[in-house]
Amino acid sequence: MTDSPARLSHVDAAGAARMVDVSAKEVTGRRAVAAGRLCTTTEVIELLRRDGLPKGDALAVGRVAGIMGAKRTPDLIPLCHPIALHGVTVDLELTERAVEITATVRTADRTGVEMEALTAVAVTGLALIDMVKAVDPAATIDAVRVLRKLGGKTGDWQRPADRP
Amino acid sequence: MTDSPARLSHVDAAGAARMVDVSAKEVTGRRAVAAGRLCTTTEVIELLRRDGLPKGDALAVGRVAGIMGAKRTPDLIPLCHPIALHGVTVDLELTERAVEITATVRTADRTGVEMEALTAVAVTGLALIDMVKAVDPAATIDAVRVLRKLGGKTGDWQRPADRP
Amino acid sequence: MTDSPARLSHVDAAGAARMVDVSAKEVTGRRAVAAGRLCTTTEVIELLRRDGLPKGDALAVGRVAGIMGAKRTPDLIPLCHPIALHGVTVDLELTERAVEITATVRTADRTGVEMEALTAVAVTGLALIDMVKAVDPAATIDAVRVLRKLGGKTGDWQRPADRP
Amino acid sequence: MTDSPARLSHVDAAGAARMVDVSAKEVTGRRAVAAGRLCTTTEVIELLRRDGLPKGDALAVGRVAGIMGAKRTPDLIPLCHPIALHGVTVDLELTERAVEITATVRTADRTGVEMEALTAVAVTGLALIDMVKAVDPAATIDAVRVLRKLGGKTGDWQRPADRP
Amino acid sequence: MTDSPARLSHVDAAGAARMVDVSAKEVTGRRAVAAGRLCTTTEVIELLRRDGLPKGDALAVGRVAGIMGAKRTPDLIPLCHPIALHGVTVDLELTERAVEITATVRTADRTGVEMEALTAVAVTGLALIDMVKAVDPAATIDAVRVLRKLGGKTGDWQRPADRP
Amino acid sequence: MTDSPARLSHVDAAGAARMVDVSAKEVTGRRAVAAGRLCTTTEVIELLRRDGLPKGDALAVGRVAGIMGAKRTPDLIPLCHPIALHGVTVDLELTERAVEITATVRTADRTGVEMEALTAVAVTGLALIDMVKAVDPAATIDAVRVLRKLGGKTGDWQRPADRP
Repeated sequence: MTDSPARLSHVDAAGAARMVDVSAKEVTGRRAVAAGRLCTTTEVIELLRRDGLPKGDALAVGRVAGIMGAKRTPDLIPLCHPIALHGVTVDLELTERAVEITATVRTADRTGVEMEALTAVAVTGLALIDMVKAVDPAATIDAVRVLRKLGGKTGDWQRPADRP
Repeated sequence: MTDSPARLSHVDAAGAARMVDVSAKEVTGRRAVAAGRLCTTTEVIELLRRDGLPKGDALAVGRVAGIMGAKRTPDLIPLCHPIALHGVTVDLELTERAVEITATVRTADRTGVEMEALTAVAVTGLALIDMVKAVDPAATIDAVRVLRKLGGKTGDWQRPADRP
Repeated sequence: MTDSPARLSHVDAAGAARMVDVSAKEVTGRRAVAAGRLCTTTEVIELLRRDGLPKGDALAVGRVAGIMGAKRTPDLIPLCHPIALHGVTVDLELTERAVEITATVRTADRTGVEMEALTAVAVTGLALIDMVKAVDPAATIDAVRVLRKLGGKTGDWQRPADRP
Repeated sequence: MTDSPARLSHVDAAGAARMVDVSAKEVTGRRAVAAGRLCTTTEVIELLRRDGLPKGDALAVGRVAGIMGAKRTPDLIPLCHPIALHGVTVDLELTERAVEITATVRTADRTGVEMEALTAVAVTGLALIDMVKAVDPAATIDAVRVLRKLGGKTGDWQRPADRP
Repeated sequence: MTDSPARLSHVDAAGAARMVDVSAKEVTGRRAVAAGRLCTTTEVIELLRRDGLPKGDALAVGRVAGIMGAKRTPDLIPLCHPIALHGVTVDLELTERAVEITATVRTADRTGVEMEALTAVAVTGLALIDMVKAVDPAATIDAVRVLRKLGGKTGDWQRPADRP
Repeated sequence: MTDSPARLSHVDAAGAARMVDVSAKEVTGRRAVAAGRLCTTTEVIELLRRDGLPKGDALAVGRVAGIMGAKRTPDLIPLCHPIALHGVTVDLELTERAVEITATVRTADRTGVEMEALTAVAVTGLALIDMVKAVDPAATIDAVRVLRKLGGKTGDWQRPADRP
């Protein structure tokens, strides 16, 4: 971020959408961590906890959907580059009324992987809503955001404290 | 929702994931409205407003991504039925620090389309983050939720006031 | 087509893209025939003819690509409805310097299938260029157009003579 | 099957591939059951059994892959019709050296769903091989076959005893 | 192109389709420019021009479809290698009765990207036909062809003057 | 394989599915050969042989489906890495009552390509069943297995004689 006026990078001077050329960017190890939250009822959380039994697939479906969603990022986000993905994890933690979702994506390529991490979180959230919507049709996905980014020219970026 | 103990509909008694059989459900006109919010900075909102010029593709990219995302719902959500979609609109409204996203999906089929509406909202949000992330890497997607559902056996459902 | 001023059907009054609601349209048998042409050299046509031997897959690859392409239409064309397809054929005819491509698509659904037929033709053409480009890098796809449309409210439409 | 000479239905008289026209077929309830087997070592089966713990995702990944695979059938099988799917289940049973895979697919449409059931079995088998290949690189998928078909013009079909 | 008899590179000596092995090819910067033309009526061109207003998504939909289409190339073209894409632009220019489409694709990989550029042009053309077909059902895609290719072993290739 | 207790590599210590991080693995040339068998009747084999005529697309459809299937591997297998593919061949050999399927996949990347080779074999088998099922609804896919693996840290692996 310089002093020059900010611009949307994915549109040209006339405003036309484009996939920006990253040929000149270096292939380096990159990592991104994103998070989000499924807000629901204590009843649903109790059902998900009880699901911690043999063949308790409810949370597994969320994890698998998120990992597969990360791979579909360039299909979903129009101007995203198709890139290699070297590792994806999706962690789910049950609190009293929410499922906290954290996704970590790793690559060694020319662009960062924050969109892949955000997509993993969002798709995990959607898959979990699908699992619980018969019990809680008002379940909500909140706070889908990047927590941290490592690697690439801009180096390490950490979410500032004043952006919750 | 009856007095009988609630259950996750997408797992069987043993907890195994399944795509539930909807053969017995009626083909009826159904509609779902979902909404969400891209939270960002006043600077980004200003850039998106200025983009309201010829070839101002930034918001168009979000709308198109959301509509196409609705069509990819059964690819993304593991246990979702592949169904016909008869109409999808994605509306974007700029406020001071946010883009309010509303998606309406219509069909005449055997299942509701709330997952399609939620997916449209989430993918629109992801595509907008991709557009603005060079200027605001801390942009967040919030409050992805169903507002209203019409049609099908359960009839009209409106988001309760106590679930913001 | 009435006397009222023509409008682009896929954008609303403000110009925003949308997937138009077809719920009110009738489910009827519909058919569309589209055509196009791969223009290349006599040498390439000779190679394709000789390919008419056991395991002569060159033209088969074009046919299969076109049929599969028809099924991908709603993935490719942003505002196209996902619909059922009941039959797809792709016919290839070799002339002196060209491969004439004709695709016929059938359905019984709420929208016409001319986009599916056009997509079948275009993808067949692209697959054939891929087959021949090592020999003729200047091969061209020409005249991708609808020849005829049957069924639906507008009834039978035939390409007018003054639009070649 | 009549006395008239058998023909491959997906190629025309000249041998060209086509998606056969099913417009004239009736929309009826249809069901197909297919099965297959992952053959591996007692050690792997033991690992999969132990996985029957909280967050034991190994078998869940197989089930989810199979259900999602059923939905991808028309993308994978060139001449398959894209059809509605109303229900998919994938059952896994551990024996001494194998995982027995059974998939049941239901629809109400114009074609049978045996290809969807077979695809669910094959993709489940592939996903399970991927899970176990670090321990048993020689794991094999065997006996992917239709067990039973119900509905449609040909009515009920049951696998003959002399075709194991 | 040598004196030895030309052969279709994507079929083996017996004519069987294959994805040719490019392991031995060098990873180098490559670029391809392709073009094509949507031929329509002056009335449609006028509507597209007027669309140059806020939320004028018609041309944006074409651009976005083309960029996303470039990413789907290996899904559509059976024997195309899946490769990295480092940049894609789609330019649209309105003339009296046509939209001139030009796509530029960049990569650093083992194969050229002319198929990706051609696919971007063809899919842009299809998306534009979809936008205008209610007003001009006879709109045609013409002259989809490679203009220029740079990089790789064969070096710079420019469309010869005698191949229009 | 060491003396330490074997573990499923795609689940973590708690059993949660993940896409394992391969960043540290070397980019090397890798190859995998997999095979399988379509078991059917002498009548079907005879029909497939006769199909060895001009436009005899039946076997071509199987080959093309297998090659395209290899490219879809990361879409189908939840925890598979998306990787580059540098070459894919699918060979079909007719015996008295079977079609022997062999797929060879090559890459230069961070993971092996045995899943891609197995997927090519399985999808070829599924596409062939689809071609012949009207004549032999009991056709079976058998013995889908890796024959050989070359490259990568583990080096050359050949199927042991005691695992048929």
